[in-house]
Parts: sequence; C-alpha cells; structure tokens
Amino acid sequence: MSASDTSSAMRVVDIHTHMYPPSYICILESRSTIPLVRSFSQDPNPRLILLQTEVKVLEEATRDAAASPPGRPLTSHYASLAQKIHFMDTHHIDISVISLANPWLDFLDPSESGQMAESVNNEFSTMCGQHPSRLYFFGTLPLTATLDTVLSSISHLKDLKYCRGVILGTSGLGKGLDDPNLLPIFEALAAAQLTIFLHPHYGLPNEVWGPRSSEYGHVLSLALGFTMETTIAVTRMYLSGVFDKVRQLRMILAHSGGTLPFLAGRIESCIMHDGQLVREGRVGKNRRTVWDVLKEQVYLDAVVYSEIGLRAAIDASGADRLMFGTDHPFFPPLTTDEQGEWESVSLNAAAVAKAVGDGSAQAKAIMGGNAIDILRLDEDA
Amino acid sequence: MSASDTSSAMRVVDIHTHMYPPSYICILESRSTIPLVRSFSQDPNPRLILLQTEVKVLEEATRDAAASPPGRPLTSHYASLAQKIHFMDTHHIDISVISLANPWLDFLDPSESGQMAESVNNEFSTMCGQHPSRLYFFGTLPLTATLDTVLSSISHLKDLKYCRGVILGTSGLGKGLDDPNLLPIFEALAAAQLTIFLHPHYGLPNEVWGPRSSEYGHVLSLALGFTMETTIAVTRMYLSGVFDKVRQLRMILAHSGGTLPFLAGRIESCIMHDGQLVREGRVGKNRRTVWDVLKEQVYLDAVVYSEIGLRAAIDASGADRLMFGTDHPFFPPLTTDEQGEWESVSLNAAAVAKAVGDGSAQAKAIMGGNAIDILRLDEDA
Repeated sequence: MSASDTSSAMRVVDIHTHMYPPSYICILESRSTIPLVRSFSQDPNPRLILLQTEVKVLEEATRDAAASPPGRPLTSHYASLAQKIHFMDTHHIDISVISLANPWLDFLDPSESGQMAESVNNEFSTMCGQHPSRLYFFGTLPLTATLDTVLSSISHLKDLKYCRGVILGTSGLGKGLDDPNLLPIFEALAAAQLTIFLHPHYGLPNEVWGPRSSEYGHVLSLALGFTMETTIAVTRMYLSGVFDKVRQLRMILAHSGGTLPFLAGRIESCIMHDGQLVREGRVGKNRRTVWDVLKEQVYLDAVVYSEIGLRAAIDASGADRLMFGTDHPFFPPLTTDEQGEWESVSLNAAAVAKAVGDGSAQAKAIMGGNAIDILRLDEDA
Repeated sequence: MSASDTSSAMRVVDIHTHMYPPSYICILESRSTIPLVRSFSQDPNPRLILLQTEVKVLEEATRDAAASPPGRPLTSHYASLAQKIHFMDTHHIDISVISLANPWLDFLDPSESGQMAESVNNEFSTMCGQHPSRLYFFGTLPLTATLDTVLSSISHLKDLKYCRGVILGTSGLGKGLDDPNLLPIFEALAAAQLTIFLHPHYGLPNEVWGPRSSEYGHVLSLALGFTMETTIAVTRMYLSGVFDKVRQLRMILAHSGGTLPFLAGRIESCIMHDGQLVREGRVGKNRRTVWDVLKEQVYLDAVVYSEIGLRAAIDASGADRLMFGTDHPFFPPLTTDEQGEWESVSLNAAAVAKAVGDGSAQAKAIMGGNAIDILRLDEDA
C-alpha cells in the first residue's frame, strides 16, 4: 500500500527535529566564543548560547552573577535519545528524520571537521539503528575541510542505511550558497540522492534590530532573522543558476521557505524589470522562474505556525511538497510541563488541519505521506 | 452612494505612486553621495542613484566612461505631473494618492529640512489642486529637524486640503520606529487623522547579499531588502508597544506588509516561547497580538505581484484593508514603450482578479473602494 493512499491511517513524520549528540556538546563546552555551552550560577542547567545577538547578554552574565543567564537551558531534550522517543510518543509522531542542530560543524578548524563529521554521522546512524523504522537522519558535512574531504563525507553518508540527506546552513564554504565552488558538492549530493535540508543559523547583522533589541528577547533574530536568511540564501542560489546547473538537486527549505512563497512574485517582477539582467539577456522566454523551482526542486517544511502562511506555501509549491516538522528541542513550553504536549507542535499541526481540512488526503500527505514518499522512509520497512 | 456599494462602477485608486518634484531633484543633483542625480556620457538621461548597494557601480562609472551607468534613467515619469496623469489615464486609474519617493528628507541637514518639507508639501498640494478629485497626497515630514518643527509640519499638513497622510521611512529620527522619541509624532499624526504610509528605503546591510551580488542587478535589494526592512520596522514597533500606546495610529504598509502576513504566525510563536518575555510578564492573556494589529491598525497595499502573496495579505488583514497601488514611476517596462501599459501594474491588477475574482465586490474594494473610504477621497467630491 502506498504511503499516500488516502484510505490508510495517517502516519506522522517529523522532518524538522534536531539533536546535539554528547560528543558535539563536549565541543561546545570547550569553546569561549559563541556558539558555546557554559554553566552559570543563575541556572541549574548548563546554558546553550547560539546567537550572535546574545554577545552582550553573555558578557553581562559572565561579569555579574545576578544578571539573567544568556541563551537557553540545555535540557535533556537536546542530547537524549530516550527523550526524543518520549517526545515522539507524546505527539503521536511515527517517524522522525533527525538532524544535528545549528551551527553544525561550520565553526570547526579544517583539520578537525572531517573526522568530526564522520563521528557525528556515525553517532546519528547508530541512534537510528536503535529504533529501526522510527528514526532516519540528515547527515552533516565538514564544510570547512577540503573538497576531497567533503566528497568523502558524502560517500560515507550514501552508505549509511538510515541517512536520507544532509542538513546545510547558509554560509556554505563561507561565502554563501551561490559560491561556484559548491557546485561539485551539490552535484555529488544530487548523484547520491541525498536531499538537502536548508536551515538558517546566521540571521541578519545585529545592527538591523536597532538599539532596543535586547528588550525583545530572541524574537527578532528567530522570527525574522532566520526566515530572511533562508530566503536570501535560496534567492542567491536561484540567481546564480545553481538550480539550472544541478537539475537533480533537491532541497527542503526550513520554516516553509522563510518568506519565499510570499515574496516569489516580487522577486520575479524585480527580475523582469531589472535593467542589468535584461541587458545581459538573462530574462529570456525559456527561463525557469522562481515558481518553477519551487514546484520542481524545492520542498518546504510546514513549520510556519499559521494556516495563512501554510496556505501560501502550499499554493507556491504544492500540497505534495510540504512536510510536517516540530523544530524540537527548540521552543519548549514555558508555562507547562516539558514532558507533556508542546504548543509549538500543536500550532503547526493545527495550521495543517485549518489549511487543508482535518483528516483530509492533503493533511495526511503533509503530516507524513509526503515525507515517506519523498525521503523513501518505507524502503527498509 | 457609498464607494463600497458593489452595484456601482469600479473606481480605481492608486495609493502607492511617487513623484520627485523639480525642487527635490535639484537637491539630489547637488549631492556627491547617494542618494544623488548625476549625468554620465553613457546615457542621454541623467541617472537617479538611490541604493547603497550601488556605491561600487557609481565609483566605477565615475572612473570609467565605458562602464555601465549606475542607478536608473531619470525619465519624465519621475517629475512631470502631465506624465503622471497620462500614466493614470493609460491604466484607467481614477484617483492617485501621490507621495514623495525615497529617501524623502531623511538625509537633509536639520537646519534645512523644516523649510524643505514645507516647500515640498506645498508643491504636492498645488499639483493636487490642478487636478481636483483625481489627485490627493501623502505629505513628507522633516524628521531630521527638532520635534517642534516636525509637529509644525504636521499642523501644516492637516490644513492642506488634499493631504491624507504622510509617507514615512523606517529610520524615523535615525534609530528606527521603536524609538520612544517618536511617540509625540505618532500621537500628533493620529490626532490629525493623518494615515502613515510606511515605505522602505534602507534595505539590509550590503554584506548579506554576498560577494557576487553585483551580478544580480537590483533584485536582491529591491525584492528582499525592501520587504524585509518593512517587516523588521513594523515588528520592532509592535514589540515596543507603539500600537498599544497610540491606539488611533493608522498605518499602510508598502508591498503588502513586506513579509508580515507570512511571518505573523512565527512572530507570535516566538513571542509565546521567549523566556525573557514570559519572565517579564509580557505574554499575558490580554495582549493584542500581531494579528490583532494587522486587523485593527494596519492597512496593506496590494503591491505584491502574485495572487499567492495577495491572498495571504487578505487573510491576514481582511479584504476591506487592502488597497491597490502601482509603485509608479519605478519598474517601467524595459522592452516595450514606456508610454503604453506597464506590466508591473497589470501584474498587480491581475493578482487582485485572481485572488478574489475579477469584478467581484472584493476586487472593487481593493482596486479603489477601500482607499476612497479609508482615506476619505470623496469628502470634497
């Protein structure tokens, strides 16, 4: 029976769900600049500090034991596999496609990153093997290493039974995803049928948030910085021709594409009305538009927290290209038990039900069927 | 007969349409840094250079007469009232609410801006008087001047017969629109029933576009920079409590809110899940959400170039809060006659027809009825 058969029971798949394995947390604990893990007397949990916007809060808390601690509590949700399974059971998630969370291995010395990638990918592979048919994973590439090392890592991932793709940040080799030096990597991923899960980390420069931004917690950098970063990264890829040059490239965009479904029309109009691009003959009749790429090479997760955004995402890419996700272990409930239901999850599940109808064929597809088909999660069932 | 009576013929109102009156162009011609107007041997038209992303192209063209000229041709569309009326007639636009284009008076020395605002606002007022019942305008504030000067300017605008609001950039007094020093200005505008038309100019810092951005013309800064800038500005206003503090404030957001309709769900979730905001008791039950503000204090133009984005905007704010616009004189056709129809206009008109049905009551409202009601364009008819 096909996973997308609408008469079948719904299976829920979470394709946006992270872990920091213990070996990775050790690296973060050894660091003195963000990203890092550090303990403060203000909090029984160690704190995980990821965002560049947190530099000032980190400095304050280091100086003054009465100041608010920076970052977020590093609870068992970040590193414990048992906790991941408990979370899945609590939310009726049948399958999770787990991935290392940001900032992956982007900050490692080139001499370390190849070995660390191998170790992290093996660790994810082992975790999946402990829960066959419930766990798959997106691997991590050692992007600070040499091209040969990155290509070896892709070969390694191709042979790991539960690996279905790689999670990728927007910095690439350091110059963004429109860097032509990434093309052999994109080609190798496409040839290995490894889907890219594009995920933000770097946000926007602090100056855009203004002098009062510390009053707004993490809202600006997480709600706007992350989504805008993803949109910029994909648009740069599109404009540089990556999607034409590597036609078999497949890419899942985090947070329903950041803002791409909403902005695609304006991007297209700006291209058609750009003097330079028209002079250079780049706006010809056979051009594949942003809309074409959204329907042919891009998938979107359904992590957008409202039916209004989700409907735009569905209209842009198609209901057969959206895939449910939770963003666990981020956004835990702050006023209810962390072991119970998470509102950040139910918000996204409710958005699916509202956008396409609770229990509808499209809802089943978005909640799990699409992921099973697209990421071949039935292959060893 | 009410403008929103669906049995009446459709009247088309353009609320997003700019002019640079000759006196303003003189200022731009006298400048040596962006924004500026300058002639190059490469182009018979003077060139209008507005964007910080154009610094390098400007330098190159200044050094090398064979290099591509920076900016865009400053055609008669920018300064000629006759041309504006011709454009309106060509596109069956009954009424235009004209406004000075970016960057307004944001760059003027404080000693000059008060007088320049008065002169520019009088110039717009005179233009409207030459075409009664066809032209209204949004005035311009001298934001680099003293508070008293700004408040005097608001009093002046309140008395100008065809003025219906002010156009405002995102820098405010230099620190963004969440600056508490702006509150008396917002209060004065609300008391005078002058609607703010919030418009981007500053985009995002050049570094986010990466080392290859010059290959992409103006696409990144106009399609993404402008829309993200607006979204950030409004979100900062929301988080600082401006909309609660000045409940009568009314604001039209350019480009259908930038990306706000798509991101409002994520903004709300990030607020609910922010440790700092929850600790500070800022996420209480009676909080007015971003959605509430979108439906109560914000209007959106319909300049989004696709029915997918437009539908999200309508779902977020309501079909009675959307207003058609053209962005004339920007985005002229590049391969057809500038005196004929502009595709940048027809794209947005088609989006309305596709989103709510050609000729429907909602289409009539968005194409003109809403603007007539909201901006009181029938008052002196």
